[in-house]
Amino acid sequence: MTYCVGLVLNGGLVMAADSRTNAGVDYVTTFSKLHVFNPAPERIFVLLSAGNLATTQEVLNRIRRDLDQPPEGPHLLNVNYLFEAADYVGKVSLAVQREHGPALSQSGVSAETTLILGGQIGGESHGLFLVYPQGNYFSASAETPYLQIGESKYGKPALDRIAKPEMSLDDGARLCLVSLDATSRSNVTVGPPFEVVIYPRDTMQINQRLKLDADDPMLKQISQSWNLGLRSAFDGLPRFEWEGPIPTSPELTS
Amino acid sequence: MTYCVGLVLNGGLVMAADSRTNAGVDYVTTFSKLHVFNPAPERIFVLLSAGNLATTQEVLNRIRRDLDQPPEGPHLLNVNYLFEAADYVGKVSLAVQREHGPALSQSGVSAETTLILGGQIGGESHGLFLVYPQGNYFSASAETPYLQIGESKYGKPALDRIAKPEMSLDDGARLCLVSLDATSRSNVTVGPPFEVVIYPRDTMQINQRLKLDADDPMLKQISQSWNLGLRSAFDGLPRFEWEGPIPTSPELTS
Repeated sequence: MTYCVGLVLNGGLVMAADSRTNAGVDYVTTFSKLHVFNPAPERIFVLLSAGNLATTQEVLNRIRRDLDQPPEGPHLLNVNYLFEAADYVGKVSLAVQREHGPALSQSGVSAETTLILGGQIGGESHGLFLVYPQGNYFSASAETPYLQIGESKYGKPALDRIAKPEMSLDDGARLCLVSLDATSRSNVTVGPPFEVVIYPRDTMQINQRLKLDADDPMLKQISQSWNLGLRSAFDGLPRFEWEGPIPTSPELTS
Repeated sequence: MTYCVGLVLNGGLVMAADSRTNAGVDYVTTFSKLHVFNPAPERIFVLLSAGNLATTQEVLNRIRRDLDQPPEGPHLLNVNYLFEAADYVGKVSLAVQREHGPALSQSGVSAETTLILGGQIGGESHGLFLVYPQGNYFSASAETPYLQIGESKYGKPALDRIAKPEMSLDDGARLCLVSLDATSRSNVTVGPPFEVVIYPRDTMQINQRLKLDADDPMLKQISQSWNLGLRSAFDGLPRFEWEGPIPTSPELTS
């Protein structure tokens, strides 16, 4: 399983992913699911992936080959809008799946991969797209400034409550880590290292790139602080009418 | 969809359910999913249900008929252990599904229902069982004192962090409401009224039974307080090393 999340904020993009990959429960490994392409000074793209690892790697390899040996049609060096980049990535993904899908489906394995594409092309706004395995795509919005792929449910409540376009990029990175931490606590197939990139809009380069192992002090601190904060939020909940007034220490109520 | 959760605590049981039922997105109604059976002074049972509504109702009707007209085999008046009650409920559920399943599956509809059975039989400990559609069952434990059925993922992180056997029944009820609130925020097919029962062990009767509509003041207060508490937990998270010391107001960092 996988969990990736991206935020499109007024100040730029934050994108994050876990790194745990598994083929069944007895073959668990670590692969990066966050890939940065900065093929020219005025364009930057970040891809997050959830799905078949072989498909994802071939999609990335074909995107890189198209940068080395530009084909006739669209590629990441000649698209003018971010939606065109999403369309291109969707077409590459679909082509890879069509090539390997039939053999895989005979073995009962899915060739599908779902992608999140974030980035900016000079002169255009920064943006964030979800690219479906079928090659179609949609963009995050001011109303819903986040996109998720993979094991998305455990980490969604925190996003629903806290994600806002006006939040700072650093707050966005903290929120992504909280969302990843919540997911990895509830689903063991999602796990560190957690990768996070911060892209301040119009800069055309990644400002911060983190890779936090399970024993990284910052990740531990965020996890512990969030845990204590939730505990404190719980202890501060209103009491039922039959309970009477709040005692001095919540521990005394047990 | 549905979300039901039960806690088995040292002090007794807390069981809760939403009440939203839907057949597709254009037929959404309200049905109780929490059912109390107190067929004799020394025995009490609470059932939570997630799945096919017709199956669930027929299971409940057959259980009631067995209490009115006790059959030869086991029923809720003659079982001696809670696991026997779970076994009986599983057999009733399986019998109903076998009767209606073939016709339903031809229409592409599942006859399945998943149940949580909590309760106590005089002389035995209180307990909580999950009864699968296949009729088998397992019990919650001190390590995992909660059981969930239906749309369980959104409400699981709060349970994973806070649920402990030693927590008070009232805290357990608050936790169930927080878990239900989180779920209904992220999945519109889960919604109020939320029903909660509190059963103090060895009392053989429900102590508190709540039915909280969307505009119930207590539910609103819990939802708002939890939301503010999470916001505060978020604002208290540690800062990245590049951010420097915490400013007076977090808003200034945007």
